[in-house]
Order: sequence, then C-alpha cells, then structure tokens
Amino acid sequence: MNFASDNWAGAHPAIAQHLLAAGAGFAAPYGASELDRNIERRFCELFEREVAVFFVGTGTAANALALAAINRPGGVSFCHREAHMLEDECGAPEFFTHGARLAPVDGDLGKIDPTKLAAEIGRFPPGFIHAGQPMAVSITQATEIGTLYRPDEIAAIAAIARQHRLPLHMDGARFANALAALQLTPAQMTWQLGVDIVSFGATKNGCWCAEALVFMDPDTAKDLPFIRKRAAQLFSKSRFIAAQFEAYLHDGLWLELASHANAMAARLQQGIVTCRRGRLAWPAEANEVFAALERSDADRLRAAGAVFYPWNPPHANPGLLAENEVLLRLVASFATTADEVDRFVELLQ
Amino acid sequence: MNFASDNWAGAHPAIAQHLLAAGAGFAAPYGASELDRNIERRFCELFEREVAVFFVGTGTAANALALAAINRPGGVSFCHREAHMLEDECGAPEFFTHGARLAPVDGDLGKIDPTKLAAEIGRFPPGFIHAGQPMAVSITQATEIGTLYRPDEIAAIAAIARQHRLPLHMDGARFANALAALQLTPAQMTWQLGVDIVSFGATKNGCWCAEALVFMDPDTAKDLPFIRKRAAQLFSKSRFIAAQFEAYLHDGLWLELASHANAMAARLQQGIVTCRRGRLAWPAEANEVFAALERSDADRLRAAGAVFYPWNPPHANPGLLAENEVLLRLVASFATTADEVDRFVELLQ
Amino acid sequence: MNFASDNWAGAHPAIAQHLLAAGAGFAAPYGASELDRNIERRFCELFEREVAVFFVGTGTAANALALAAINRPGGVSFCHREAHMLEDECGAPEFFTHGARLAPVDGDLGKIDPTKLAAEIGRFPPGFIHAGQPMAVSITQATEIGTLYRPDEIAAIAAIARQHRLPLHMDGARFANALAALQLTPAQMTWQLGVDIVSFGATKNGCWCAEALVFMDPDTAKDLPFIRKRAAQLFSKSRFIAAQFEAYLHDGLWLELASHANAMAARLQQGIVTCRRGRLAWPAEANEVFAALERSDADRLRAAGAVFYPWNPPHANPGLLAENEVLLRLVASFATTADEVDRFVELLQ
Amino acid sequence: MNFASDNWAGAHPAIAQHLLAAGAGFAAPYGASELDRNIERRFCELFEREVAVFFVGTGTAANALALAAINRPGGVSFCHREAHMLEDECGAPEFFTHGARLAPVDGDLGKIDPTKLAAEIGRFPPGFIHAGQPMAVSITQATEIGTLYRPDEIAAIAAIARQHRLPLHMDGARFANALAALQLTPAQMTWQLGVDIVSFGATKNGCWCAEALVFMDPDTAKDLPFIRKRAAQLFSKSRFIAAQFEAYLHDGLWLELASHANAMAARLQQGIVTCRRGRLAWPAEANEVFAALERSDADRLRAAGAVFYPWNPPHANPGLLAENEVLLRLVASFATTADEVDRFVELLQ
Repeated sequence: MNFASDNWAGAHPAIAQHLLAAGAGFAAPYGASELDRNIERRFCELFEREVAVFFVGTGTAANALALAAINRPGGVSFCHREAHMLEDECGAPEFFTHGARLAPVDGDLGKIDPTKLAAEIGRFPPGFIHAGQPMAVSITQATEIGTLYRPDEIAAIAAIARQHRLPLHMDGARFANALAALQLTPAQMTWQLGVDIVSFGATKNGCWCAEALVFMDPDTAKDLPFIRKRAAQLFSKSRFIAAQFEAYLHDGLWLELASHANAMAARLQQGIVTCRRGRLAWPAEANEVFAALERSDADRLRAAGAVFYPWNPPHANPGLLAENEVLLRLVASFATTADEVDRFVELLQ
Repeated sequence: MNFASDNWAGAHPAIAQHLLAAGAGFAAPYGASELDRNIERRFCELFEREVAVFFVGTGTAANALALAAINRPGGVSFCHREAHMLEDECGAPEFFTHGARLAPVDGDLGKIDPTKLAAEIGRFPPGFIHAGQPMAVSITQATEIGTLYRPDEIAAIAAIARQHRLPLHMDGARFANALAALQLTPAQMTWQLGVDIVSFGATKNGCWCAEALVFMDPDTAKDLPFIRKRAAQLFSKSRFIAAQFEAYLHDGLWLELASHANAMAARLQQGIVTCRRGRLAWPAEANEVFAALERSDADRLRAAGAVFYPWNPPHANPGLLAENEVLLRLVASFATTADEVDRFVELLQ
Repeated sequence: MNFASDNWAGAHPAIAQHLLAAGAGFAAPYGASELDRNIERRFCELFEREVAVFFVGTGTAANALALAAINRPGGVSFCHREAHMLEDECGAPEFFTHGARLAPVDGDLGKIDPTKLAAEIGRFPPGFIHAGQPMAVSITQATEIGTLYRPDEIAAIAAIARQHRLPLHMDGARFANALAALQLTPAQMTWQLGVDIVSFGATKNGCWCAEALVFMDPDTAKDLPFIRKRAAQLFSKSRFIAAQFEAYLHDGLWLELASHANAMAARLQQGIVTCRRGRLAWPAEANEVFAALERSDADRLRAAGAVFYPWNPPHANPGLLAENEVLLRLVASFATTADEVDRFVELLQ
Repeated sequence: MNFASDNWAGAHPAIAQHLLAAGAGFAAPYGASELDRNIERRFCELFEREVAVFFVGTGTAANALALAAINRPGGVSFCHREAHMLEDECGAPEFFTHGARLAPVDGDLGKIDPTKLAAEIGRFPPGFIHAGQPMAVSITQATEIGTLYRPDEIAAIAAIARQHRLPLHMDGARFANALAALQLTPAQMTWQLGVDIVSFGATKNGCWCAEALVFMDPDTAKDLPFIRKRAAQLFSKSRFIAAQFEAYLHDGLWLELASHANAMAARLQQGIVTCRRGRLAWPAEANEVFAALERSDADRLRAAGAVFYPWNPPHANPGLLAENEVLLRLVASFATTADEVDRFVELLQ
C-alpha cells in the first residue's frame, strides 16, 4: 500500500526489458545515434509538428533548462505559488538562469488565476528597469495537487502571456496523466492552446530516468545544445534515455500506464468517499488524491503498512482542517494495484 | 570493429540484467532508499575510510560539482591543458562555479608537469586580488591520452597542492582502467597519495549512466546535497544508479571489465607494432591506443567497417606526424572482442 | 519644490569641496592609499569595534555583496515584501549570489513582523533540500516607507535570526536618517542589537557616490576583497570615495544633514496635517512623508512646479485610498529648504 | 617622481572643479537627467554615428558588461594573453557572463597575432558543442604594454572576427592616449575599422571615476539597461559621471591630457636612451615606458623617492633580462611633469 509518490515506483517491466535489449552493440554517443534521432522524430509525430526535443535526466533539469533557453537579465517568470519549480527544486531555476526570479501567482485548486497573473505581470511596466522584466509564464499540468487545467483555462493564460510577448511553459511531469484524463492529444493540450515549451516527463509514469524538453518553435532552442551540455545534462550513452522513450511511447503504453494510475486514484477517491471516514480536500482529477483524515486513522493506516505523506502546502488555508485531522497526499502510479487500493480503503473503514 | 570511444558501448549484460530486476517494487526516492544507502556504504569499504558519496548522471556533472563544492570567488583551478574539463565540457566547470577559471598546465604524455604546476600557481601570489586566487588542482587518471600517473607522480602533485592548501581532485572517468593497470586499490591510488576528491566514473566501463562523486573528507561536502539538487543532478528514482553500481562493484566485475578493455588495447597496440604499418604516438597504458597511420591505411580500414576518430589534441606537436599520416585514437571497452582487434590488425597489415 | 527622492539632490558643498581638494597629488590605487586606510579606521571608531569595511559604488552593490559574502547554495534570504533589494534592484541580489532567493515577509508599516518571519523560516526545515536553505535575514533602516525599527523590534528579529544561525543584514541606505531620528549611536543601532552586516549609505545624504559595506565580524568578510573585485566594485581611484566619507563623517556633518532632512519631512508632515488637505498614510519617522492627496490637488501642485511621485507599493491595501485620492511619496534631503516646504504647503492649502 | 600607474593621479582640476559646480540643484537620478542625455548625445557626435552609451563605474565593469551584452552559453572570447580582462580583473568577465571563458591568444608587443587568432578560433568548429562556441574578440588599445595597434592591424583582426560573425570589442582604458598618438578620430579608430563595442575609459586620464560603454549598434545593447542595473552599475546620482565627461570632453581637454601623458612618456624614454643606463624593452608608443634597468639603479631611484613597479608579464621571455637587471613599467599621466621626468633621468644617470 504505497501511496507516497509516483517516483517510489521503479520501472515498468516493458520499459526495463527494452532497456536490457538496447544495451547490446555500439551506438554513437551524446544523442547522435540512430535511435536518438528516431525518437526525436517520434516526438514530432506525437506533437504533429516540427519540434526541437532534448532528452535530459530530471524534471528539474527540464524545467530549469526551459527557462534558461528563454532567459533575460533581470527576468521574472510567473508560476503558481505551489509550483514544483518554486517549491521543490532548491533554486535550480534561478541557478540555471543566473538569478532570474520566479514570481508566485495565486489561484484556486493549484491553478494560476488569470486575473491575478495579469495583475502580477502588470507590476513590471515595460522599460522600468528597477523591477526587472517579465520573461515567461509557467503552468503545471497536471498540477502539484492533482488537478487539471481545462483547455479554455490554458487558452486564457496563453492569451495573457502572448499579450505580453511571454513564452508559455508547461511543466508536464505528469503530462501523460493529464492527457489521459482530459482525452486530448499532445498537440491539443499544448501548442494548439498556445503552449510554447513542454517539460515532457516520463520518469514518474514508468521510466527510470526519461525526461524530454520539447520546444514548439525550434528557433527558440537554437542555443540549447550548448546550454544542455554546459549544464551537464547531455548523456554520453544517451540511447539509454531514448530506449526508455521508445518502449514508453510504443503502442500507447504511456497512456495506458497513466490511465491506470488515474483509475487507481479514482478508485481510491471513491473508496474514501464511500466509507465516509475522511473527506476529499478537492476532487482528484489525475493520479493524486488529497484527503483530510482523522489523525488516528492516518496513524492506524501507517501502522498497518500503508506509506504516504502529509501535505503541507506553502500557504495552506488553516481553516481547511479540523483539530484532529491531517491532510494526506495519496499518489497512485502505474505500479499501484486495485488490490492495494482496496486494502487501504478496507483498513480505513 | 568499433574503436570510436568507450561510450559507444552499451551496458554490460550483468548490469543491465540487474537493473531490470531492480525495477520491481517501491523504494524511497531522491537517494533515500536502502539500496542507495547500501551502495554508499560499499564506497566507504572500497575506499577503506568514511567518505561522502553522491551519485550523479554524467562525468561532466561529477567534475563540475567537485569544483562547485570547493568554489572560491575569483578561483582558479589548475589542470592539464588536455583535460576533459577544459577541452570537452562546454564550460560546465565555469557554469557550476559561477565563473571560476580553469588554468591549463602543460606536461608530457597528458600529465601535469609538477614544476610547471608550481610555476603556474606561483603566478597567483596570496592576497593579490587582481589575478584571482588558486582554488584546486585536478588530474585525470587515466589521462585523456590513455597514459597513467604513477603513484609517485600523484604524490608529487599532491605535495604542491598541499603546500598551497589546494584540494586535489582526480577525474576518474576511467578510474577502473587505471586501477586495473596499476594494480592498486582505490585507497592506494587516491587519499593515501593525497587525493581529496574523486569523480568515480562507471559509465564508460559498462554502466548506462553511473557516476559517483567521492569526497575523502565528508566535511568538504556538507553543502553538496544542496549543490547537487540545485544542479538538477538528484535523481528521483536514484536507485537506478545505485543498482548499476551494485552490479558493477559486485564480485570484482568492474575491475574485470576494465582489465579486459586494457588487455584489448594492449593487444591492439601489439598488433600495430608487429605489423609495422603505423607507429605508436606513445605507449598505451590503459584502454586507449594512439597511433600514427598512413592516411590511406586509415581510409582503407574505415571503408572496411572500422569505426574510429582522428585525434586533434589542442596543442599537438606538428612535428609528430609525417605529411601522409594521421593520428588516430583507438579506444577499447568492456565490449571489445579479441576477434575485432585481430580483424582490425589483419586489415591494417 | 523637489520631493521626488533624496537622490535627486547633488552633493553637499562641503563634500564636493573636499573632493576637489583631494584631487591633487598621487595616491596608491585600489583602496591601498593612506586616506583609504584612515577612513577604514574611522569606521572602526564609529562602530566602536574592529569592523571590516569595503567601499563600493552603489547601494545595490552594497546589498548584493553583503548577501554574496554569506552565500549558500539554494539559499533563501528573508526581507520585507517592500524591501529595496526585492523590489528595486532588478535581480542584483540573485545575480551576485548566483541565484539565491529572496523570500518576502509581510509586516505592518514596512517592517518585518517577527511572527511571520519565524513562520517563513519554518517553511525550510533543516536538511530538507528540496526547498533550499535559509541564508540571511535583511531589514531596512529607515524602511522603504520612511518608518523606523525601534531597538526592541530589531532585537526581536535578531533573536529569530540567531536561533536559526542566520546573519542579520541591515540595508542602511538611510542609516544616518534613522540614527538621527532615534538618537542612537551606530553601535547601539547595529551589533549591540544583533545586526551583523550593514550597508552604510551616504549617497542619499549628501555624497555623490559613497557606500560602505560594514561587517561586524571581519572573518565573515575574508573573501570579500575577491568578491568585490570580481564584481567590478573595486575603484582604481578609490580615494574619491574615501574623501567623500572623510568630509561626510567630519565633525558630525552626516548627522547634521540627516537631522535637517528629517526636520524638513516633519515640517512637511505638520503642514499637511495642519492645512487639512490630505491625510498621512502613516507617520513620517525619518525623511519621507507618505500622504494621500486629492488627485486634483496633486495635479495642481505639479503644475505649480512641485516634483514628486505617486507611491505604488507592491501589495497596497486598495482600501487605503478614496476614489479621487492618490498616494504620494514626498522625500526630503539635505538640500531641501524650509522655504520649499512652506511653499508646497501653501500651494496645497 | 611617481611613475607607478596613471591611476595614482587624482582628478584634473578642470574636471574636479566642474564636478563641484555640478553638485548644486536637483536632477533626475539613474541616468535620466538632462545632463546625462546631453553627454550621451555628445558621444554620438564624437563617434559620428548613433551609438548606445552606458556610464559605468570601473573599467572592469565596462569590459565585463560588454561581454555580458553579447553573451552565449559555453561562449569563448579571444583576447591577448596579457589582456587586462584576462590578467587583472579577478574573473569579472567570467562572473558577469556566468562562466563564459577567455581564451588567450599570443602575439608580439602585446598585440594579438591575426594568424594565431584564426588558429585559436579554428579550434571551435561550428556545432561542436563539447568545446563551447566562439563569442567575441577583444583587443586593448593602447595595449597593456604601451604599444598601439595600427589601423591596418585592427582591420586585419576585425576581418577574422567578421568572418566568424564575432563582435569585436576594444578595451579603451587608454583610448585617449591611443587616439592622440595615432592622430585618429574615434570613428576612424573604431567602427570604421570594424570595432563594434568600446570600453571608453576616462578615469586613467584625469577623471575620478568615469567610464563609458559604447555600442556602435544600439540593437546589440537593448538588454543592457537591465544588465547594468542588475550588475549594480547604474548610479543613482549618475550625473556625477556625466559631469566628469562634460568637462573631460570639453574643448579637447581629454586629448590634451592624453597628449601630455604621451609626451612625458616619450621624454622619459628619450632620457633613458640618451643616458645609456638601461635599455628599452620595446618602444613606448603611448604613455607607458618599459625599460630594463640594472637592479642597483632601480634601488637607487627608489631610495631617492621615485615610485614605480617591476613588470612581471604572465609569460615573459626570460631571455629578455640580464642577471642583474629588472624590467620596470613607468607610466606617465596627465599629472606627470617634465620636471619629474628630468629628475628621474638625472638620478638614473
């Protein structure tokens, strides 16, 4: 009963097996192999346009390099207050951009409020050098708290970004979970709505270590080969990432795994609702469930072997919880089983 | 007949197989799993002392983070003119140290000349702020050109470093090849001679992506958890590196693979010498052979399917080669077979 | 009637005259002259202890170098939401620290609320690398909005900083104005309360370009000579800053000028209160008056030649102002005359 | 008899007097005053074209910001091995560019050898990311050792830079000395030969602290307002720099002062040659004389009150000096008198 995080899971057998097979033989290093090229082409197909793709090792690297590619002196990027890049990357975005700043924007359910975004950007009048200059907008899909931007919500944010000539980045650490839940294509969820750059995560969804940075406009990325290499993110045996993606994207495996994780989260949510011990903090839309449980229930579950963490959002509404309650984050992954979920719910009951 | 580089090889089957097995089940992410801890302990045993170990994704990351850990404003690190960190990392060391400089030192056979090192350091008198301040010395073992520092040579450089209170770093991208060739233990080749920090590479010797940054004095590394995370080198499914190391270090596999690669290079060298078509530029001491061949021979070999690259050292002695000759770098790896070597030599003949 | 800012004033005649005299003859450059040394000693006397002093060219440089001296990877410094370093330095603190972050803390009257400070710091549990690590606390005295921290308020913040082993920095762009208003000595307002580093500004108070960075513990500053030089803030004809300080600190001129500026602000405040056209946003405690005026009055004053700016604080309470009002920031300097003030009030009436 | 350096002199009386006068009254800060604008226009006239001008505080700042404006990830700038930015700025260029590298190029008489420049650039084949990418060429005029690039020599270097699409920067810390010696106009010595960016120094030639960064193509500098502010080089009372330039550029004062310094160096050189005690290391072409003196003579002069420094170039030809000789650098400035020079020569004799 492990709901600690989707990165507690290992690698999906099909991916691990494919990696084993890919180990034989010689191949050009540093992203120059045929396999690397093929998978790059695969991404163009996937996004239904010519994109520039860069394999990197971590989601933090993908996000930070995305900002590095569009960096500006005194730059300020706008993201949700709970965004991973703001809360959980130890200043990597600032480090990779030599000090460009992240400005938190509030919004319900983990999503940027467009009105607040416009107001925040408005605090940086063009040419007023003292405050710095706007540089980018970044959204997370699915969000840090397991919710989803609907297409019109993305479009609304994209409109503001475009109005200020700011590129729009999507942190897609759980890109597949969002796609599967919304029943959209990659193109539909990104550039067709105005998204310019995607951190395309696969690690959380069954790979070992496979992240791709995707630029809708390859021109934006023309210095990225140097930026990535200088950032120590160009892998010599790069094919080990390419091979993971090959298996991951083959025959819809990635969406299948994401759908499974989403379904497990839905099942867990349903179980909690049904058994009436605990309340949902907000509806689970992807593979994460946030539930307020009585502390004694949480302790009991933990004692019975369940693994999970409390959720301490940066600026949580203290009114959300009763005295004896604790807010839990319960994450399902490709490796979560219905049986595990059911046991958890049974124990909770 | 692939002698292009040891990073053209994939993963050794034992390592790939172990990685496949390690994919099952849940484990704490970000280096907190039991496996991670076990392998960290394994490094302490290996080095026969309490060391601080950090798994990272690339050799460039290991080198750059080593310097970041001992960074100084206006800092200058001394390395051989042909060092990988100076010639092949696209400025990563400068990027990770926010601009600390690398100063090239000359020396025969790819090794720093201690007299020249002392003279270079002497150009930075203590307290003379205009020039900056010395920060580190870095040597590469085996060197970029396949030669080896003998223990007394390392000790001589360490003595100079110590005299100026500079930490001594060893870029061990081919650490195992050096160990195997010199018949030394890790302790004997490092801290017992005065080496403070090691980039312990395993990728070139049969892993997919496994590098460890080893600090002999854990105090030196007390900020490294933050430095590594900020540098996007803390992997969420960190066990995939730990698992590679587990197989790599198990039962002497790593030294076996390195010995094999060294033996293949020796066999290749012997073949070239024996067939009298081509000359050795210098003796191969690890897994790389540098040979001057007639251009027509090189072309013929290439046409017959051999893969290799010419070597253009930064400041090559132009007198080394005859008009019709080309200098080749021929690298053997764990995956090189005696048959391949023999075919190459046969073709050359 | 110029109340735009204290940096609209030029140089006080005594200072400018002294600079003229200091131009003759030869002197060792880069801070090595006898004059430089003497003024450094003068600072030790002023602070009644052995301090390390560094002359720099701008207040932004002083603040940013203060943080650079105590920099940490993934570091987070806590300052008031309206702090100059956060709002008006175009990311210089992030740039000079290679990406360390500034975390805004709220508090009434431009001053950090100690409870909120403790809560903010508490968001960074020791060893939790994902969030980064606390690095410093910075307060501004006098604040950006012309208020003053009382000694006990500074001590309360210092206690929290000390508890977390964080150095406490004071941005003293208007240090003299605060000292004069509070009738404290430099020692009393700084290290005796727990302040570790001071940006000692003189430019706003009658110098051309004279800022000093003062470290109570010279050990903290041992790398600063390199940090300053690398930051292009070591002036070759450094004596031109030293000479300004010589005149500035001579015979109490600096406190006299600050007292005058404070008195002019008080006179202006009194005038506004008395004439009953406009309200004070909060009491002026140093040399800045913040007043809500009717927009038509503001326009009228401007048309009559008064120079001033509206104040748009980052997160102003929109309820502060009536529909037809505008919030003005009116700054007095050493060069402000009672006559100017009286004319302004007369016009307002 | 002070020949230590031109930065040992103070400010020329005309400039200091003008600064005194400029202290009165109010003016818009941060470069927005009428005076600032006027002096910016003055630079356009001086260069006979629309240029972008930025006042900064130190020559190091001018050089480092010039590179920051044209920065590239993994960038490498080519300058002479003895260039100030390489030898004397404590890594400021690397710091301001977040780690872009300076590559030394050799050449006689302190000047880049075009053939060697082309060879160095050739080491960075386009698209070969491992080595980084060329970013700029920088020459120093007058050079660090008091020699001058002739127009055709500048043009030859510019041709190579243009061929590789690299901007050409001129470090003009002694720009006026070079102009005066070569009898060229600013336009003739810069953009008409292919120079794109100039660090226009005035500090060494009679100002306190006045440096201008001049971009021939204002488009190149469009981010510089942010870069400068973030680098803490935007002065609040910016008019104190503008005022120095106003006096400096008025009625040819700057060229007069430079001509005087050059003439004093020529007189000193002539005196050394005539008295036959000591040899010129190379001909003085601007305001610096490099002479090999017997050590005993140097000691005698020093004892008699002469101030000067030995010159230890980074890679000096050890054959240049006899056992008992020392190489001196003797610098004349606007403040050097013929009488001082004559006394020095007399004492030497």
